[in-house]
Amino acid sequence: MLKKVNLKDEVNSVEGLYIYKKIGVLNGHVLSAVQVENRTLDFHVHEKSDELFFVIEGGFQLETEEGLLQVDEGEFVIVPKGTRHRPVVTKLSKFMMIELEGTLNKENSGALYEE
Amino acid sequence: MLKKVNLKDEVNSVEGLYIYKKIGVLNGHVLSAVQVENRTLDFHVHEKSDELFFVIEGGFQLETEEGLLQVDEGEFVIVPKGTRHRPVVTKLSKFMMIELEGTLNKENSGALYEE
Repeated sequence: MLKKVNLKDEVNSVEGLYIYKKIGVLNGHVLSAVQVENRTLDFHVHEKSDELFFVIEGGFQLETEEGLLQVDEGEFVIVPKGTRHRPVVTKLSKFMMIELEGTLNKENSGALYEE
Repeated sequence: MLKKVNLKDEVNSVEGLYIYKKIGVLNGHVLSAVQVENRTLDFHVHEKSDELFFVIEGGFQLETEEGLLQVDEGEFVIVPKGTRHRPVVTKLSKFMMIELEGTLNKENSGALYEE
């Protein structure tokens, strides 16, 4: 059964921070919705998957060896596999993420998961 | 060089209808931006790739053997590979699409391409 997904409704339905809710699957890639506030992860690398951050609400800085890139509401950035990076989030922000299934874990996302 | 992409700015920068502008690549999948108005494609199947339609502005109906699914601004739908479908677009609408590279062609998109 085909269903549509409303990005804002999905991310707002997640009760709590750092909880990744799976909202879709595309060719083995997981689309997830997560709310984050006041968190900077350790630098890390995904060896097997590019990673997309889409800002549904708020904004954050993506830190890489190039420096800090500010990404705001309605914008996305794709981090190529093998790129050392960390997201720096201060204000409450809401994201859709896309990565190959199995890419995220507690260490590189600081998160919990919900199907 | 990492860059961010503003969805609305990108789709509004496309001059004309049915022109797919590549706005990103994620693990061999192309993200593209396109404006469509008053067009219904023939039913078709993508055998090798799921397909994501995200509505940046406007709305459309996705027709499958299940019937018509209305998808509006801020919503997406993923059509699994092998699913017979066609998009039905009446009012001017703006989309981000994601499929495996090589999935779209003139016959199944009614479109032109721009890198």
